Formats: sequence, C-alpha cells, structure tokens
Amino acid sequence: MKTIKLGLLGMGVVGSGVVKLIEKNRADITRRLGADLIITKVAVRDLTKPRSVSLPEGVVTDDPYAVINDPDIDIVIEVMGGDEPARSLILQAIAAEKHVVTANKHLLALHGDEIYAACESKNVALGFEASVAGAVPVVRAIRDGFSGNRIESVYGIINGTCNYILTRMAEDGSSFEQALMEAQQLGFAEADPTFDVEGIDTAHKIAILASLAYQTGVDFHQIHVEGITGVGPEDIEAAKEFGYVIKLLAVARRQDDRLEIHVNPAMIPVEDQIASVGGAMNAVELNCGMGGINTLVGPGAGEGPTSSAIMADVVEIARHAILGDGYPMPPMGAPIHAVSPTPIIPMDQLVTCYYLRFQVADQPGVMARIAGALGECNISIATMYQNGRQRKANKPVSVMMTTHTACEADVKRALDILIKSNILLAPTTLIRMEGGE
Amino acid sequence: MKTIKLGLLGMGVVGSGVVKLIEKNRADITRRLGADLIITKVAVRDLTKPRSVSLPEGVVTDDPYAVINDPDIDIVIEVMGGDEPARSLILQAIAAEKHVVTANKHLLALHGDEIYAACESKNVALGFEASVAGAVPVVRAIRDGFSGNRIESVYGIINGTCNYILTRMAEDGSSFEQALMEAQQLGFAEADPTFDVEGIDTAHKIAILASLAYQTGVDFHQIHVEGITGVGPEDIEAAKEFGYVIKLLAVARRQDDRLEIHVNPAMIPVEDQIASVGGAMNAVELNCGMGGINTLVGPGAGEGPTSSAIMADVVEIARHAILGDGYPMPPMGAPIHAVSPTPIIPMDQLVTCYYLRFQVADQPGVMARIAGALGECNISIATMYQNGRQRKANKPVSVMMTTHTACEADVKRALDILIKSNILLAPTTLIRMEGGE
Repeated sequence: MKTIKLGLLGMGVVGSGVVKLIEKNRADITRRLGADLIITKVAVRDLTKPRSVSLPEGVVTDDPYAVINDPDIDIVIEVMGGDEPARSLILQAIAAEKHVVTANKHLLALHGDEIYAACESKNVALGFEASVAGAVPVVRAIRDGFSGNRIESVYGIINGTCNYILTRMAEDGSSFEQALMEAQQLGFAEADPTFDVEGIDTAHKIAILASLAYQTGVDFHQIHVEGITGVGPEDIEAAKEFGYVIKLLAVARRQDDRLEIHVNPAMIPVEDQIASVGGAMNAVELNCGMGGINTLVGPGAGEGPTSSAIMADVVEIARHAILGDGYPMPPMGAPIHAVSPTPIIPMDQLVTCYYLRFQVADQPGVMARIAGALGECNISIATMYQNGRQRKANKPVSVMMTTHTACEADVKRALDILIKSNILLAPTTLIRMEGGE
Repeated sequence: MKTIKLGLLGMGVVGSGVVKLIEKNRADITRRLGADLIITKVAVRDLTKPRSVSLPEGVVTDDPYAVINDPDIDIVIEVMGGDEPARSLILQAIAAEKHVVTANKHLLALHGDEIYAACESKNVALGFEASVAGAVPVVRAIRDGFSGNRIESVYGIINGTCNYILTRMAEDGSSFEQALMEAQQLGFAEADPTFDVEGIDTAHKIAILASLAYQTGVDFHQIHVEGITGVGPEDIEAAKEFGYVIKLLAVARRQDDRLEIHVNPAMIPVEDQIASVGGAMNAVELNCGMGGINTLVGPGAGEGPTSSAIMADVVEIARHAILGDGYPMPPMGAPIHAVSPTPIIPMDQLVTCYYLRFQVADQPGVMARIAGALGECNISIATMYQNGRQRKANKPVSVMMTTHTACEADVKRALDILIKSNILLAPTTLIRMEGGE
C-alpha cells in the first residue's frame, strides 16, 4: 500500500479534529485513495499541554522546522492560524516543494498573492477550502464547479458568531449584548469577539472568495467593513415589518470592470434562500451567470466542519501525489500571470436601497424636515414605519424608513444636512438593503 | 497557445447551451486554463434541423463515429440522452481513450458500473456533474468536497418539474392537474411528463448520488419509487396544518451496513433548510458526519445550468489533458475494485413517521375503528386533523393523521385491516415524514 505522509503545524481544536477525522474515517479514506495517510510529525507550541488526541511516540515536536524540513512529508497542514510565524513557515514548506493545506483566512486575505505565487513557481498545491465557511465546499464550487461561468456576484453569510447573534436577536428580541453573552456561553463567540462582531473575519473570507471568483488580487484594506454592534432590536423588528431579515453580509459583485466589495449588516428579503439560514450556519450565494443562482449552506466553523474541509484538500492533493506528477490547479484557479487587479468601487458610488433609523423628538415638523432633506438629495422614500411602543411624552421616537435605490454619496449628504439641523437625538442607523428597487 | 479539442454527440437544448457558454465565456475560460477550447466536431441526428447556434463549415456531421474516431478530439461531450446509442458511443469513445463528459442520468443510473469500469481501465476521466441537479456542483461536493467524511445521508429535491408542481399546489391550492398544465405551458414539464411526475428521473439521480456517497453499486430496479400524482390539495393543506411541506424527496441513507434508498412524496418540517426550496429549484442535503449537514441549492435543469455543469467537467478534465498525464480521479471517487455492493433495506423494514389520509363516511364509530386498527398494529397516533370544509351530510370526509415512528410493515398491515373492514370509501394516501419521532 502506498502512503502519503502528513505534517501538522499546530494541534489546537482544528488540528486535533484532523487527527480524529483521519482515525475515524481511515478505512473509507484509504479505500477512496488506494493509499494510507500517515501523520508523521506534528509541531505544537507547548509540549506539556494536554491534548484530546494521542499520537505515537516521536510524532509530536515543538520544532516546526522538524515538520517543514522532514524530507518524507508530502503535505504540510497549517492550523496554527494568524500571521507570523504561519506565513514564513508556509513559504518555507512551499520552497521545500511540499503541498500545503491551510485554514488560515487571515493569512490568505493579507498575503494570499505571495503564497499563491510561491505555490505556482514550485508547482505545489495549496488547499484552502477550510479558510471559508468550514465544511461548505465553496472554494471548490467557485474554482471548479462554476469554472465555465462568469460569476456575477458572491453573497456570503460567513461568520457563524454574527449569524448566531442576529438570529437570537430576531427570535427573542434580545439586545446585541444579551445575544453576544449567550453566544459566548455556548462557545459560538470568543471571549474577545472583536474579529467576529466587527466584521473583520468576514472581510478576510470575502477577500478570498472574491479573488477566486473574479481571479483578481483584492487589497484587503480597500474593503469597506462594518460590524453588527450598531444593529438594535428596533432594526430587527423594523426589518420584519418591511419583509426583510438582517444578516452580516459580505458582498462581492462584478460591475462592468470594477468590483463592489463590502461587509456590512444588510437587509435581505425573507423570501431569499439565504434569509432562512439561521443560528451559527454559513451560506454563500453565487450568481453564476448562465449557471444561475446557486446557494451553499452548512456549518461554518468548529472542529468537525473545519477538519472536514482540510481533509477534502488533503485527499485531493494526495490523489495527485500518488501519481507523482505535476499539480494541475493553480491556487486561484487561473495562472498568476493571467490574474489582474480589478478596481474597487468607492462606497460613495454604491447604488442600492437603504434602511434608515432616525431618533428624533416626537414633535410636529420633524418628519417634514427628514423628508425634505432626503428629497433635496434625490432620495425617494419607499416605506416608513414608526415604532408606536416607543412613543411616550418627551421621549425620543424612532422613525424607520426605507428608500428606493439611491447613491450612497447622496444618502451621506442627506444625513449631514440632518445632523446640522439639530433634529437628530442620536446617530442615525444606516443598513443597506439587497434586492430592492 | 495550447488547444483542447472537444467533440459533441448531440446538439439539442443542452448541446447548444455548451456551444453558447464556450463562446460567451471564452476569454475567462482560456485565461483560467491557459489553453483554448475548440469544438472540432458535432454529431446531430438531422442535419436539416434549424439550430440556435452556428458552427464553422465542416464541424457538424450526422455521423457520430466522425466524433468518436477523430484522433484529434480530447474530450467527447455526450448530450444526446437516453440509453442506446448513447451507451455504445460512450463506451467506444472510452475505448478510443477519450475523456467523456455526459449529462445522461438515465444511462449512468442503469449502466454506470459498466461505464465507470471502462473509464478506469483506460485511465480516462468521466465527468457527470450535469447528470444531477443541473448547475449545482453536487457530484463534486460528494466526491471531492466531503472525501474525508463518512456521509450518513443524502436527501434530494432533484426534479424541477415536481418541485414546481408541488410549489404551485402549496401556494395556490391548485390541483395536481392544474399545476401540471401550468408547468407544461411554462416549459417546466414535458408534453409527456411521466418520467418526471412518476419519480423515475429522481430515482435515476439518487442512484448516481448514492453510488458516489457510499461508493457502492446501486441496483436501480431495487429503488422504491413513488411519484406525486397521488398528492392532493388536501394533503398539502394538512401538511401546512402539521408544520410540514410536501416535496418529492429522494432519500439515500446509510443504516449500519445497509442502504435505505427510495423516492417518494415526503413531508419535511418547514424549518428544514430544504423546505424553503421552491419552484423549479433543486436542493441536495448531505449529512456528512463530522462535516455536519450541508445543503446545496440551485437551478436543476435548463440550457444554462446544465451546460454550466458540463463545462465545469470539461475545464477540470482539460487541466489534466494539458499536463498530458494520468487522470487521478476514478469516476466513483474510489477505484472500482474497492467498491462493493450494499444491501438495500426492504421498504417493509423502514421505520419512520407516517401521514395517512383516510376517506370515510362521517358517522359514529369510524374513528374508533381506525384508531383500533392502528393500535392493534403497534402504531401510535401523533396528531389528527379533519378538514371541516369537506363535511357535508352523506359526503365522505377526509381524516388526516400523523403517526409516531412505526415500521412500514405494520402500517401496511393496519391499512389491510381497514380495507377489509369496508369503512374506507377510497384508497388511503400514505406520505412518509422526515424528522419526526
């Protein structure tokens, strides 16, 4: 029986998951592959830390170079996460002509170009299915499944923490803070949830998906990113009233030769397929041109789903390693010399429908001033909704409205006029809407 | 620039779609591949028939052997459909060491083993993403995306015609006949809809998916198949009442070392991800073990989606053909010698919840006799619902009930007792339920 030798960098939750998955499904994997997978070396930071899996004597080391310099190892699996030393170790593994599988979205979003180019120059594979949406095979879908298409847009609900929080808020009427605390208690959110709730993790992932879908480098720092901390129970309730749900949405849409790319809370029509994706689940909706609109839904994180995606890459790469010949798939799905940058559309030029929640005093003339400012900036109001339950004497009231399509620069201009008019008692909440007219 | 030469067998809707897709997305595909795709020969039955695409002089022929014997052609795309001559032509193309891409689910469901074995012995690729669920990359998901998992179950809504009809019935209260007529007018159903509405097309597709998911040969004739012609508006309404929707569901579920596989109308809890998949859309839900439950949704048929799936296979195979080396993926995702048959569970041994609609006279004692027969056969009633609007003097009434989990043999026995008791005024409708207890 042929063998394929694996080395792991890191053995936290995901690394342990990989070891468990291989043990659990060894018979199936060996049957599929006609070869046996052997974990030869695992580098950990702290040898004394207790682990949920046990490996034979001599496999675990605290020297990552023992992994990347081991001439026997065919595939290096990087599951340490973060920037350095992961970046340097991956580049050295590639230089040593090892195939690499990684779950590191942070690294690929920021240094993907460098890593993709290194892989191509050494003709080694880079598997990164696990970097976006856990088990959901969305990297494969874009790179292989729709390779004959011109993808028009990618929508992603790709952060389980935010989706869990927003789902709790919608189901229970809880506040953001309450829902976050519950998510933390259940292990769906980190003690420091900043990366998730501020949308940064989501932005990492959409940068990767956009690179693949449009075969273009994406400058991560040009992505407009808003998190969900500003979404209130009133907004969730108003969304229901208007026939929408609020999700933290990553959007990467082709517009002629430019790319619209942003992460923000968005209102999605309830009848859309992704609107029903709740809890910690992830979803990616791809408008594939002639291939139509396709949606993939599944668990976006955790030991099982993430190691499932890693193993899919390992098995695919192992099939080639067994043949012993070149690897036919460049990481981006196109050779790096054929990849060109796409200009990113400034947010001011975005044209979409908007939801606005104003906090104003409940007194005559206020509505006229809001409507006036919007009208002055060419913004046409579609619907309006005032939450009756907030209406007490001398208390501020919330006025929610949705607009027809408007240019974001005009919306900002209208908000500036209203700020200067002194009728707003608190900052206005702005949520972009998908699917309106 | 390298070139990959394609030959087509057939140029109906799907074949024309392939030609259009290549023309439309040539720049993108060439960039991804680093090679140009050239349609060298297209065999059609009738040279005089008008076509929606035009090809250079000399490309179109009425001799299929001009395609499969052309030494220049790398990949043969079979889009004629049906059994013979497609089967013989594909086998001869494989014998001539050509890679094959096909959308022919009928052929693969009935002769897959023969074709898979032929491909493996010649080390050529077989692409059949287009055979199930149109553009939805479900073949890839199972074979590549979850290759590290042990898949536990596959649920499919994989016939757009039936899904369209059932969606119309649920939305409008229309009868099966009305909804079918509408589907025919809109081109979602054939003039002779038998293959679709009787569940045969769905059974072809689940046979293919089960072969892949469990890497086992599936004897098509052992699959229990029921269509949707017996589903009435009353059942749709009762499903709503109970919190379910009715879909034509293909199920292939692993149970220890046996396979549960059947196609039938099924009640699915409204909160399930696939319950919201309406119209002509398709969905496949995969329980991937450690990889969790993943759902893929998209357009299941038509020129664009089917040719999208064909082109995904063409591009993948072309990447290998350019390298000029062996093809690493056996059609079933495991070498044929490692594939073994799995016994299929007889339907009598199925254990699930059931929905039953009895037509009885509205008179005292009838309910007691139904309840008595069910109790006698160890079947416990979960909910009951009687449609008030049917209740007129001397008219039969419909009594709908759902059971807790029961063995199908017991249910049949209870129905036999009731048939013999002469209280039933019409055949009883039985619909299996998913997700109950």
